[in-house]
Amino acid sequence: MTASVFDHPLLSGLLGDTEVAAQFSAAAELQAMLSFEAALAKAEAEEGLIPVPAAEAIAGLAEDFVADLDALNQATARDGVVIPDLVRQWRAALGEHASHLHFGATSQDAIDSGLMLRLSEVLRIVSQRLAAIIAALDGLETRFGPQPLMGKTRMQAAIEITVAARLKSWRLPLVELRDAVAALSGAGLPVQFGGAAGTLEKLGTSAVPVRARLAAELRLSDRSQWHSQRSIITELGGLFARITGSLGKTGQDLALMADAGTALLGGGGASSAMPHKRNPVKAEVLVTLARFNAVQISGLHQAMVHEQERSGAAWTLEWMLLPQMAVAAGASTRIAAELLGSVENLG
Amino acid sequence: MTASVFDHPLLSGLLGDTEVAAQFSAAAELQAMLSFEAALAKAEAEEGLIPVPAAEAIAGLAEDFVADLDALNQATARDGVVIPDLVRQWRAALGEHASHLHFGATSQDAIDSGLMLRLSEVLRIVSQRLAAIIAALDGLETRFGPQPLMGKTRMQAAIEITVAARLKSWRLPLVELRDAVAALSGAGLPVQFGGAAGTLEKLGTSAVPVRARLAAELRLSDRSQWHSQRSIITELGGLFARITGSLGKTGQDLALMADAGTALLGGGGASSAMPHKRNPVKAEVLVTLARFNAVQISGLHQAMVHEQERSGAAWTLEWMLLPQMAVAAGASTRIAAELLGSVENLG
Amino acid sequence: MTASVFDHPLLSGLLGDTEVAAQFSAAAELQAMLSFEAALAKAEAEEGLIPVPAAEAIAGLAEDFVADLDALNQATARDGVVIPDLVRQWRAALGEHASHLHFGATSQDAIDSGLMLRLSEVLRIVSQRLAAIIAALDGLETRFGPQPLMGKTRMQAAIEITVAARLKSWRLPLVELRDAVAALSGAGLPVQFGGAAGTLEKLGTSAVPVRARLAAELRLSDRSQWHSQRSIITELGGLFARITGSLGKTGQDLALMADAGTALLGGGGASSAMPHKRNPVKAEVLVTLARFNAVQISGLHQAMVHEQERSGAAWTLEWMLLPQMAVAAGASTRIAAELLGSVENLG
Amino acid sequence: MTASVFDHPLLSGLLGDTEVAAQFSAAAELQAMLSFEAALAKAEAEEGLIPVPAAEAIAGLAEDFVADLDALNQATARDGVVIPDLVRQWRAALGEHASHLHFGATSQDAIDSGLMLRLSEVLRIVSQRLAAIIAALDGLETRFGPQPLMGKTRMQAAIEITVAARLKSWRLPLVELRDAVAALSGAGLPVQFGGAAGTLEKLGTSAVPVRARLAAELRLSDRSQWHSQRSIITELGGLFARITGSLGKTGQDLALMADAGTALLGGGGASSAMPHKRNPVKAEVLVTLARFNAVQISGLHQAMVHEQERSGAAWTLEWMLLPQMAVAAGASTRIAAELLGSVENLG
Repeated sequence: MTASVFDHPLLSGLLGDTEVAAQFSAAAELQAMLSFEAALAKAEAEEGLIPVPAAEAIAGLAEDFVADLDALNQATARDGVVIPDLVRQWRAALGEHASHLHFGATSQDAIDSGLMLRLSEVLRIVSQRLAAIIAALDGLETRFGPQPLMGKTRMQAAIEITVAARLKSWRLPLVELRDAVAALSGAGLPVQFGGAAGTLEKLGTSAVPVRARLAAELRLSDRSQWHSQRSIITELGGLFARITGSLGKTGQDLALMADAGTALLGGGGASSAMPHKRNPVKAEVLVTLARFNAVQISGLHQAMVHEQERSGAAWTLEWMLLPQMAVAAGASTRIAAELLGSVENLG
Repeated sequence: MTASVFDHPLLSGLLGDTEVAAQFSAAAELQAMLSFEAALAKAEAEEGLIPVPAAEAIAGLAEDFVADLDALNQATARDGVVIPDLVRQWRAALGEHASHLHFGATSQDAIDSGLMLRLSEVLRIVSQRLAAIIAALDGLETRFGPQPLMGKTRMQAAIEITVAARLKSWRLPLVELRDAVAALSGAGLPVQFGGAAGTLEKLGTSAVPVRARLAAELRLSDRSQWHSQRSIITELGGLFARITGSLGKTGQDLALMADAGTALLGGGGASSAMPHKRNPVKAEVLVTLARFNAVQISGLHQAMVHEQERSGAAWTLEWMLLPQMAVAAGASTRIAAELLGSVENLG
Repeated sequence: MTASVFDHPLLSGLLGDTEVAAQFSAAAELQAMLSFEAALAKAEAEEGLIPVPAAEAIAGLAEDFVADLDALNQATARDGVVIPDLVRQWRAALGEHASHLHFGATSQDAIDSGLMLRLSEVLRIVSQRLAAIIAALDGLETRFGPQPLMGKTRMQAAIEITVAARLKSWRLPLVELRDAVAALSGAGLPVQFGGAAGTLEKLGTSAVPVRARLAAELRLSDRSQWHSQRSIITELGGLFARITGSLGKTGQDLALMADAGTALLGGGGASSAMPHKRNPVKAEVLVTLARFNAVQISGLHQAMVHEQERSGAAWTLEWMLLPQMAVAAGASTRIAAELLGSVENLG
Repeated sequence: MTASVFDHPLLSGLLGDTEVAAQFSAAAELQAMLSFEAALAKAEAEEGLIPVPAAEAIAGLAEDFVADLDALNQATARDGVVIPDLVRQWRAALGEHASHLHFGATSQDAIDSGLMLRLSEVLRIVSQRLAAIIAALDGLETRFGPQPLMGKTRMQAAIEITVAARLKSWRLPLVELRDAVAALSGAGLPVQFGGAAGTLEKLGTSAVPVRARLAAELRLSDRSQWHSQRSIITELGGLFARITGSLGKTGQDLALMADAGTALLGGGGASSAMPHKRNPVKAEVLVTLARFNAVQISGLHQAMVHEQERSGAAWTLEWMLLPQMAVAAGASTRIAAELLGSVENLG
């Protein structure tokens, strides 16, 4: 089944990103949620809420546990979230320690914290890619920067500029975005831990210390629960959309320049009807990915309107949008690097 | 890789639709494009443009040909479309008849016509589902229609109505949508056939007769090429969004009624923190799917802004949006039927 | 106050449309709602529900009544709709007949039916404009159709076509849209009449006959209430977006052609920094309006998710989007006509 | 003409914001652009590029100059931007100093820098409003915080929490948003100054010093030109959308609580059909404004795809979206303060 281009046997090479998409595989998701449970158990053991051997047994699941995916899929169709059945499976594997797993937590704690772990990794990947693209632009400036280029405003020749001037307009937003990614990563994405209705009612006075230990163990930042406060999701989505948007502008320019003869791109796509053509496919795809993320960001903002302590409808909408936005951002950085690497002349 | 919930090992049972998604598998796509090529060859043979044995050999590919998917994926990453390499593979399998395949056609002809074949099937599925939902609503009216229900406007008690009155407000839009689907199906989705730049320049005076035969063979409607005229895509997307929107309103109502005690729903989701709960998961998911398609439809309208004879950027954006909208519409009809089937009391 | 470009002292000449915008003036809105009340009273008098002299007095308001706009603005801030205070003002002007005004109706009946009256007029305007644009394209075909033009696909030279071929790709969608507008107008936009909670509970057995008379009097089509069934709003919005989208594609092409020297446009915008430039401003603005409506259409689909008998939140969202989409469609047709009228050469 | 609710004689009291909207009046816009020209002239005089008396004369325009708005509107319809004719009018008023106005600048410099001046003021207003809302929430916590409230997740009763817990979930995002606004304001919104094609080619080695002086004079931050780099626009729009989104969640909750009897709201809207009702109009409107901005933000991200040195199409799209998003954010803060002030009981 391949409704999404990112998972599509024919299209994923064109539009996908293997490395970022790996963070959204079922395996990565299960592993991240188990990391949450193990860190939670460790924190709760350290605060004396559960026995240390129970925490050790829970940590051991990472090596031994194999999920029954079919059962999870069916249960999720009923429960709306994977955690109830996954907790059941984990507990079945734990034997005597079963009751200490997931103590005081709820579905959203494991899922959202697990998501933040994986998004931390996505930010790391994207950050490296942005640095590589900036370096590629620096290389192009060295090679072609002084060459003259007709500046164009409102789709009309304006005055002559240099290739360097246009390269600079592509480069600056990427530097700012790399810095923004670094700032988010440096601050740490927030842990989510609230329990049934956000009040951590089962942990009593240990609630805040456990949450602090949990965050530290996961290398996330400590923050009181954000079940129904989804600003961080729109911020991350906005960052992905700014990345694709900035690279989309570069793609648009290179497609126009290829047509005008002021960019010579190696590679390029074949046509089934016109063997003589070399289409600026990667430049076009950058525009596509920019417009795709510009569409999706709207839905993340719609999903801010949660009802009460937690909205199933709004939360589920995020699952349909944010992973694809992250992969689109990943794909955009991959393709931009390839495209810039193929430039044979500018100006 | 599972960036999309529709293909996700854990989430596809909750949010997906096997039957509609099957139309967007690589196998279905390859089969539909081959149907296009076979029908084109038949039409061109009938008009004397290619030899009849060539057309027969091309028709025979449906039985024998096995695509090299890895090669297609890699080539598509370069070409932006699958057809150039697929034509190469088909021709390699055809031997002496190779040159007669895809005569006068271009990538978009095979891909868009193939898409219309598959969307015709989607409309058929959705139409049956809408009829089943309407029947389920009729059944609920028989069982619970006369029961009193507090009418609510602007989230406040208004005056007493009946369950029948609310059921009617859910039913009417579905009847209209079923009729709209029937009208589109009845008229036939349009064939796409334009050649390299839309002018069918290689077919001379046979262009129009070949296109008419091609359309008839594929049971599509005959229309001059629409390479860069994408109204039909927004109409189909709008229809999918109206289906999810109408069922989303029903879901929103049932979630509110479950909370207020005026709807008793069987099944219902478990909570990992609160075993006593029965969450109205399917009702919530109908809202999610409505908002998802409401987001995506924006992108299809953005993709109307093609450049010149054909835009790679705009066309590729459709690929990222329309299949998911179709599956969301399918999932919404599936889930609505399940949800209505689980109703134990209304009013 | 000028948050909207359509009402902006500096920008309305660039982006607005006087004729369509007039349908969304407060005066036009008040007049349309009064037409609803007069037609309702006439229908109710004919069915014996209210006295004939009361209906005549209500009809007479059209000549004499002057609304207190400040009071309406303040009351609407409290009530969320203008009708409660407007009914109060109307009744104060009616004297003895006061109680017969708005009998059995609710706010949404007057507002939505009044909207349909005004949108009927918008469709009439847009239909005439589309016909004029089609005629202008026919004129361009006569003048420049046979001239050669390099066909371009994926932003690259493909094969030579004619100016006529490109003009045809601009013309065909407009013909289909003109036909779609005619079909909607011909069927008649639907009257809205449902009373407090959609059941017309105050009219008893006269409900259906009154609604039929009301619809006929207003030249709208008869339909049972659609308080919470907003498909028609998305259909109208979709039509406006298809109009701006199709003309946006034409604008995009003309901007590219002006840059490439294959379109010579008269007029054109001045630059404050470069007196030698002639910017293809109208062509660019067509793209802007296309993207604007492609954004807004998303919100109309979001607004399908009404709660219960009527949602204040969803309904109010329509008010923020649909009028601007209509004016954008109007502006797009106005500007397209001006732009095509300024063409001095193609090819 | 009143296509926008924000300028609408009947609806602006419900949905508008006088104070924020004032920043988008033609008068405010003209004044801000003149501030740019005066600051530019002062900076250029200080760097010896133009005579000091010329700079003084330009500064004097703020007192004497009256724009011919009709001429500006007509010229903008032709030029796509107001500056060419406005410069002409200013120069006509300047006499001998005319040629020194707007030296080395282009339309976008005056318009974008002027926009940043006005948005700085919007941020100041919004910041004060957020502080007032946070204080109102603190007051509610004092009055009702300890009262019990049934926590609800997925639209179902979960476990009992306190009113304080829910208030905290409304309060925290606002604190973060207030801090985000303060950070943006503190850093200073960026000046735009690039000249004809972004290279400040007329200023030679004085370019960077003039830009630094200009930024300081306007209390904006110094930054190299961002003609075609629109991240900042999406950041500001994202901030406005996060404000409306967070307050929309509060509105959604209060509408649900009013229905459930766990919030008692004073005021409330009247119904034309049901005099007994008190509709939670302001709570609903907060949801409306949240969804409105969630729609618009998509368009700002679409507008990142500029072509070459400057895109008329993309830039104009911003004008259609950002002012309305700012006013929606303003209205949302205004209405939230009114709504919270009307709370008579919670829990």
